[in-house]
Amino acid sequence: MKTKITFVTSAGRQTEIMLEKGTNLLEAAARAGVAVEGNCGGKGSCGKCKVRLPDRDPAEPTEAEKKFLSDADLAEGWVLACQRSAEEDMIVEVPEQSDAFRRKISLTEDEEDTVKPDPAVQKIMLTLEHPTVKDQTPDLERLLNGLPDGEMEVSHRLLTGLPQILRQERFTVTAVLAPNKLLAVEPGRTLGRLYGVAFDIGTTTIMGSLHDLNSGKALAVGAATNPQNVYGADVISRITYASSNEKGLERLQHKVMEALNGIIEGLAREAGINPHEIYEATAVGNTTMSHLFLGIDPSYLAPAPFIPAYRRPVALEAADIGLGINPGGQIVVLPNIAGYVGSDTVSVILATGLDQRNDCCAVIDIGTNGELALAAGGQILSCSTAAGPAFEGAQIKQGMRAADGAIEAVQIDDGEVLLDVIGGTAPRGICGSGLIDAAAALLKAGVIEPSGRMVNPETTVTPLSRQLKSRLRPGKGGFEFILAGKEGGEILLTQSDLRELQLAKGAIYAGLQILLQEAGLTEDDLDEVLLAGAFGNYIRKESARAIGLLPGIPLEKITPVGNAAGRGSRMALLSRTERARAFALPDLVKHVELSARLDFQDAFIKALSFKET
Amino acid sequence: MKTKITFVTSAGRQTEIMLEKGTNLLEAAARAGVAVEGNCGGKGSCGKCKVRLPDRDPAEPTEAEKKFLSDADLAEGWVLACQRSAEEDMIVEVPEQSDAFRRKISLTEDEEDTVKPDPAVQKIMLTLEHPTVKDQTPDLERLLNGLPDGEMEVSHRLLTGLPQILRQERFTVTAVLAPNKLLAVEPGRTLGRLYGVAFDIGTTTIMGSLHDLNSGKALAVGAATNPQNVYGADVISRITYASSNEKGLERLQHKVMEALNGIIEGLAREAGINPHEIYEATAVGNTTMSHLFLGIDPSYLAPAPFIPAYRRPVALEAADIGLGINPGGQIVVLPNIAGYVGSDTVSVILATGLDQRNDCCAVIDIGTNGELALAAGGQILSCSTAAGPAFEGAQIKQGMRAADGAIEAVQIDDGEVLLDVIGGTAPRGICGSGLIDAAAALLKAGVIEPSGRMVNPETTVTPLSRQLKSRLRPGKGGFEFILAGKEGGEILLTQSDLRELQLAKGAIYAGLQILLQEAGLTEDDLDEVLLAGAFGNYIRKESARAIGLLPGIPLEKITPVGNAAGRGSRMALLSRTERARAFALPDLVKHVELSARLDFQDAFIKALSFKET
Repeated sequence: MKTKITFVTSAGRQTEIMLEKGTNLLEAAARAGVAVEGNCGGKGSCGKCKVRLPDRDPAEPTEAEKKFLSDADLAEGWVLACQRSAEEDMIVEVPEQSDAFRRKISLTEDEEDTVKPDPAVQKIMLTLEHPTVKDQTPDLERLLNGLPDGEMEVSHRLLTGLPQILRQERFTVTAVLAPNKLLAVEPGRTLGRLYGVAFDIGTTTIMGSLHDLNSGKALAVGAATNPQNVYGADVISRITYASSNEKGLERLQHKVMEALNGIIEGLAREAGINPHEIYEATAVGNTTMSHLFLGIDPSYLAPAPFIPAYRRPVALEAADIGLGINPGGQIVVLPNIAGYVGSDTVSVILATGLDQRNDCCAVIDIGTNGELALAAGGQILSCSTAAGPAFEGAQIKQGMRAADGAIEAVQIDDGEVLLDVIGGTAPRGICGSGLIDAAAALLKAGVIEPSGRMVNPETTVTPLSRQLKSRLRPGKGGFEFILAGKEGGEILLTQSDLRELQLAKGAIYAGLQILLQEAGLTEDDLDEVLLAGAFGNYIRKESARAIGLLPGIPLEKITPVGNAAGRGSRMALLSRTERARAFALPDLVKHVELSARLDFQDAFIKALSFKET
Repeated sequence: MKTKITFVTSAGRQTEIMLEKGTNLLEAAARAGVAVEGNCGGKGSCGKCKVRLPDRDPAEPTEAEKKFLSDADLAEGWVLACQRSAEEDMIVEVPEQSDAFRRKISLTEDEEDTVKPDPAVQKIMLTLEHPTVKDQTPDLERLLNGLPDGEMEVSHRLLTGLPQILRQERFTVTAVLAPNKLLAVEPGRTLGRLYGVAFDIGTTTIMGSLHDLNSGKALAVGAATNPQNVYGADVISRITYASSNEKGLERLQHKVMEALNGIIEGLAREAGINPHEIYEATAVGNTTMSHLFLGIDPSYLAPAPFIPAYRRPVALEAADIGLGINPGGQIVVLPNIAGYVGSDTVSVILATGLDQRNDCCAVIDIGTNGELALAAGGQILSCSTAAGPAFEGAQIKQGMRAADGAIEAVQIDDGEVLLDVIGGTAPRGICGSGLIDAAAALLKAGVIEPSGRMVNPETTVTPLSRQLKSRLRPGKGGFEFILAGKEGGEILLTQSDLRELQLAKGAIYAGLQILLQEAGLTEDDLDEVLLAGAFGNYIRKESARAIGLLPGIPLEKITPVGNAAGRGSRMALLSRTERARAFALPDLVKHVELSARLDFQDAFIKALSFKET
């Protein structure tokens, strides 16, 4: 028995879907392709999947709804989508999501120039002799005889249509070759048209860039939210979804493929090419993202001992997983290092040249997870910390991504709270850089103690301005600070938000300490700390250092390097040399598993407090 | 606009299908999976696709119908399916086809023993260490480390489900390996269960055998009519269908796959195994059959200069073309020699050891086409002759395959015509061996002149018995001979049938002459002539020699070798050595293209008459 669910967004967009009675509404939204916020994958623990059921009597709220929704919300028909299922035809109102990133995505010029193009895929134009009764050489052998290395793998797909292709331009063809493999044959002369696409598949954001493989030039750049986010903001939620639902893995793969194919279409349109002229795609991502992209069961990544299905580089035909480039085109996924140090970290190491440095240099990738790598004394160490997606807004009551309405910077000047809001609009929430800024500013002003406790304005010995005191009020588990807004529409920083931030920054800092310790070094030995990830570009180094997220080294030694994972993916696309370097990295990197180490627990606990080291 | 067509066979089976108005009835029957006879692929030139339209006024007969149907037939509503289309809902009566072969299919014991099993696919059982936090080696690398050669190709399909498979029997698994490729992994200990299937895909008949790859033992043997026959009995009709219909190639591939999968199911059931335990399939067939099986465009095989899409061996995953063995199992199609000398001939050469003989030996494969190979003086020559499917009953007015009711032997003793009918039933038609016998007997009796002309009983100078004279009567283009039956249900041998037989046998004989001539030899040099194909077992050597189909050498030098193509397919399945030998054969064989040679035309014309050489 099916029932009809009609989703209506606050902007008026309407989407209908027929689903089995009893389908969970969060699941239904995902199936309908309607974006509903949510970070916990339907466990009822994030309280973000608020939707409204306008035409229905408010049912008894669940425990999760009581916890996350106000009485006014409940009276108006707001529920949590993950707590409800569709028992009969219904209308579901969904708050509009903003996917519009404020920041223009572009590649810097110097980035393009660093890689000498030497792509794995190449074209060769051939004019073959026409067959005659005296020369009955079959089509394939005729073609292979014309190629420099006749002994190569030939895909079955190519063979099926080869006779027509050879004859379309009277035996003038252009062969598309990967090392030892014939990928495709195009009729006529098409040497000049050879394209590739490089992807960085983040848990939150997917970025792609289209390149002319002959010149190495970037032709277009695009990004999309990873639509798997409807199944949870963090990798654990997605692994759980994949392993506990019959078609879970298939759906997650389908979601990411949808987004990638959307990006490909957009890139091709912008560059004026046909997506079938794209013959190679590289992809990097954390280990979970790579598994899901490839449709590989990620179940054993989540529980200890965190075992991935594979580590080595994976190459396959685009048609094998439905990527919308040429069906015979090649997909290359860079290798992983460990269950929580994926090909994105390999890519970061590649892009930052960590394997080629002789000094002591750490890279911190503050994405949805926190991966660290340290080059010192001729070796590279890596680890991952369960930082969680706090810096991307998840787990934070009014956390959000760096989109319009996000508070991205906070200063307290003479007791006055000064905010920068992305897009210059009224604030809707707080993003990662704002969170770090807020904590640093409130710490400095004495509103937060180094322990992370928000002070009681009535009893504190710290001299606080009247303005600051008036922004403090009792909340759940302590006090909360009103960052902005009026009653009912306030942006709050809660005690719980501060605890989340402490856990996240403490984990990263402690991870770095362990890597240094493994190398027999201390943070004084650090010649440079690189901040990878787009987030690194927007973070205020002083604030990050002030709360103890970054080590207490001179600010000039801290360098944001932007989306290094994406850059590594492009390098591997454009150059066989760089790709070979990336393939060799997992064997060069010594992975340090933190979860089993008591010394990490000690370092972590020490690193929880908000103070400069 | 669609219309409903209801097919009713004379045995009462009913099949309905909805198709576009205007669909040709022969096409409709093929789409509905209803067997309608026909050899010409809908060109209206064979007159065999008789069906009856019981509920419709007889429309004006077409030229083809006037040619092939009697006035009585036309009055009763009989039409040729290829001449009619469905303009509105209709019932179509179809004469029942008999697919039951008389001859029990079995492998002889000695055949099984000739090949030492050394299959390309092997199993290795492994008990792996369980992963721990101290040993986080990913699943794939853990597995590969346990295998003798860690550097191998791994299919993406295998990787997707690997984590569950490893854990199902607590890290005890059995790996299925081809050289340098990991095909699959099974949970637990399954070393003893490793199976393969060998196919011989004939234009008319498909044969398959299931083998235990560990012991080499044949477990079951099966056969089916090639259901592509609804699109024509000969390869040219099928090539035409594939290249002139949008989904023609797809449909032909689907048909053969249906039959193969039916055979696989039957074999597996008989042997009590799961088809997913079959990890390798070898296939041989003429070049057209191999193209269609692989879904490769055969268009340029038909017109001169007869160019195949490929020649080399093809290996692919079963899932790539939907063969119903393990989806990760390997399909190996033996290489072709030329457009009309396919992997079936390679297989015959392999099975007969022609490449290992030092004497002068010819192999003649009288299947739907006539392929010849000659080993002499350390080289092998091959050619194909456009013999046509006359020996399988096509082009012969009352020709049929060797099924119940077929006249399979004819003798004339003291003016009396003696017949052997398969199944001991009333005769329904005449099969290949009967046709050759009839021609030889009538030639000896003087009813046929060496020129192939049937004598006029009134004017002939040959003394004919009254009985024989009474069986001769004027027919189209000369006289016809009543082999059996009463008026209205007679089995006739027509002048046109004799002409077809002359063309077929003349082509084969002339082909052999040209090969001998190329080798600088004559038929006196022949040490042995092998007759390949099931047909060779049933042909009467004296008769074949008497009409000049076979050379005039002592009968003891003529040896039927049965279905050598099928045997070669089994050898390539069971033994890597034999497979390598087969792969090397196309480079050893010198193909002689007859179509371009005037000396072949001369030899052919000389070979047309019915006389012993």
